[in-house]
Amino acid sequence: MSAIDRALAANRYFAETFELPPRMPNPELAAVLCMDARIDPIRTLGLHPGEGHIIRNAGGRLSDAIRSLAISQTILGTREVAIVHHTECGMMRYSDDEMRMMFRKATGAIADGIAFLPFHDLEQSVRDDLELYRQSTLLRQDIPVRGFIYDVETGRLTEVE
Amino acid sequence: MSAIDRALAANRYFAETFELPPRMPNPELAAVLCMDARIDPIRTLGLHPGEGHIIRNAGGRLSDAIRSLAISQTILGTREVAIVHHTECGMMRYSDDEMRMMFRKATGAIADGIAFLPFHDLEQSVRDDLELYRQSTLLRQDIPVRGFIYDVETGRLTEVE
Repeated sequence: MSAIDRALAANRYFAETFELPPRMPNPELAAVLCMDARIDPIRTLGLHPGEGHIIRNAGGRLSDAIRSLAISQTILGTREVAIVHHTECGMMRYSDDEMRMMFRKATGAIADGIAFLPFHDLEQSVRDDLELYRQSTLLRQDIPVRGFIYDVETGRLTEVE
Repeated sequence: MSAIDRALAANRYFAETFELPPRMPNPELAAVLCMDARIDPIRTLGLHPGEGHIIRNAGGRLSDAIRSLAISQTILGTREVAIVHHTECGMMRYSDDEMRMMFRKATGAIADGIAFLPFHDLEQSVRDDLELYRQSTLLRQDIPVRGFIYDVETGRLTEVE
């Protein structure tokens, strides 16, 4: 049975017991996190339905998230941002050049035109993304924007100052 | 108290009761979904920790997700893809031009250089993203790639054929 078919079977049960939440607050928070299979952002951040926009990509990098954050803020009204990178991230294993080589080997595709956005220093990658945020004219500069590291061994968030 | 500070307080409790899952399977599935605050992808798809990469952006659009999916497949080994758009999506409210105007009004920023990727026909947007997938040389063409609509009123996934 394929993973998608298992998910569809699980979804039938989910839908049978689905209850619409009693109220749907306007989300205040937009959070950017990694796609990593060990992370459950909604539980990690203690969010209830309706409370936050969750943006996820490889590494939790800002540059892939700018369109979504811009919409979240200016069209949909969120007014705080959390950027979360995490320990043991797959994006710390290889350099951009090594990834390009892996693509060439695996698929034949020339991947020179894509920035895979790997990083080696976890705190610095959070700081880099906070700085990129500050340089982005499409993003609101008048709201709190804070960076965190999530420890996949403990479930704990630590702020990057 | 800010939304982030509430999330940090919730995270302290989360971390206190955090248990590492007993086994960490290699994820087979990569799923692309919207950032919408009403969607809990992990519960919706019945995933256990370690079972799936979750990529989320405004609308669940493929073009923002190509870097992440490419890494998920070729670097990290996933071998199925689900693309999920949903009913009542905020991306169906405005056209690209209307969004650009809203940005100009709200922030003064000229947003002509960004494609906000709104859509009007939910099934067609899923089909468009499936077609964009097929045209992407960085993405694996030898694995199942399936599109779905998530109904936020019922919790149910319906496949788009």
